[in-house]
Amino acid sequence: MEPKNNDKQIAGEEAVKFIKDGMTIGLGSGSTVNWMLKKLGERVKEGLNIKGIPSSLKTERLANELGIPLTDFSEVAQLDLAIDGADEVDSRLNLLKGGGGSLVREKIVDMAAKELIIIVDRSKVVPQLGAFPLPVEVLPFGWELTARNIAKLGCEPIIRKKEDQVFVSDNGNYILDCKFSAIKQPEILHEDLKRIVGVVETGLFIGMGVKVIVAKNGEIELLK
Amino acid sequence: MEPKNNDKQIAGEEAVKFIKDGMTIGLGSGSTVNWMLKKLGERVKEGLNIKGIPSSLKTERLANELGIPLTDFSEVAQLDLAIDGADEVDSRLNLLKGGGGSLVREKIVDMAAKELIIIVDRSKVVPQLGAFPLPVEVLPFGWELTARNIAKLGCEPIIRKKEDQVFVSDNGNYILDCKFSAIKQPEILHEDLKRIVGVVETGLFIGMGVKVIVAKNGEIELLK
Repeated sequence: MEPKNNDKQIAGEEAVKFIKDGMTIGLGSGSTVNWMLKKLGERVKEGLNIKGIPSSLKTERLANELGIPLTDFSEVAQLDLAIDGADEVDSRLNLLKGGGGSLVREKIVDMAAKELIIIVDRSKVVPQLGAFPLPVEVLPFGWELTARNIAKLGCEPIIRKKEDQVFVSDNGNYILDCKFSAIKQPEILHEDLKRIVGVVETGLFIGMGVKVIVAKNGEIELLK
Repeated sequence: MEPKNNDKQIAGEEAVKFIKDGMTIGLGSGSTVNWMLKKLGERVKEGLNIKGIPSSLKTERLANELGIPLTDFSEVAQLDLAIDGADEVDSRLNLLKGGGGSLVREKIVDMAAKELIIIVDRSKVVPQLGAFPLPVEVLPFGWELTARNIAKLGCEPIIRKKEDQVFVSDNGNYILDCKFSAIKQPEILHEDLKRIVGVVETGLFIGMGVKVIVAKNGEIELLK
């Protein structure tokens, strides 16, 4: 196994230590979270009693395969803990997410949790957000117009495609990948984007009071 | 025909006078707009050369039946004029819309227009918005949670149903009808609602510089 995957695995498995019997857990999405799910599935088989709410259809499928019991927001008003990945984490622990396309469900799940733990390998920790293009979920209707309005904020939005087809999110929407040269004021950019009609949500997760588990060369660091 | 419907017809037909040859027109939704479409269809048959972008699947179907040529935002960046209805119009010409369930598409279309004309009968003109429950379009995922967060702003959100089934918008989302006792500061309420994750758009159309054609007992009044 190459070192980077190993760090993802280490970060993912470390997070499972925070899960206690009886908890309701928000299950994030992405390759690092998948390692967490795998370990969590083992713990469930050993008798750990938890319920999860998945933040993407992919995570839902994997959790089902691993035997992790699931619930939803018709039964649960608040989660004890959510564990999720990120594409970038800055020095103030603001997050840029959505590379996997599940930013909106992830944000709903993460915000419903009393505690949010982010798991990343060291490559995701950056001084400033924005090297990774910012994913913005938009309604399909009039998306060309929405993209033009987003462009006025200083980026060139590119509609996400998958195998030459427009990528459709779990919510039936499109995603615009917006490369800003740098995101100096993520709070303001987020609010400016949200104000645009047709924007459903942005991949900026600001001031969420997260703990971040960072793995590098097999070592764990906890940022908070 | 009862007087109220007659006023809707009068307002709808009056708006068609603002449509000029060669224009691209945003086509709103609702019973008053349907009268406008009917008249516009007659004008098109007489030779008027326009193109429309419909703000709902219902309007799209009716426009097709009436022979009104349609286009979309992949071809058009700006509309010359949009004509739409409203559920409430206040004294500052702020609008409350969405009773018909097409608030998001209507807002995208209306905002894309250089000029926006609202057509209503007199019963829609109110001193303050909010007697009509405010429609808020939300993502189906976690809508219960979104509803709880909206309730904190001082209303009791009710999920819209149609024939005992949850109503699904043209965008595949749900609509929460939110009865506030009164909406004293529509700008602030709109921003507070938009900040909630899971909210796609609200039915508050604020400061859009509209002209309002009001019909009452067969007489026309123009507010602007």
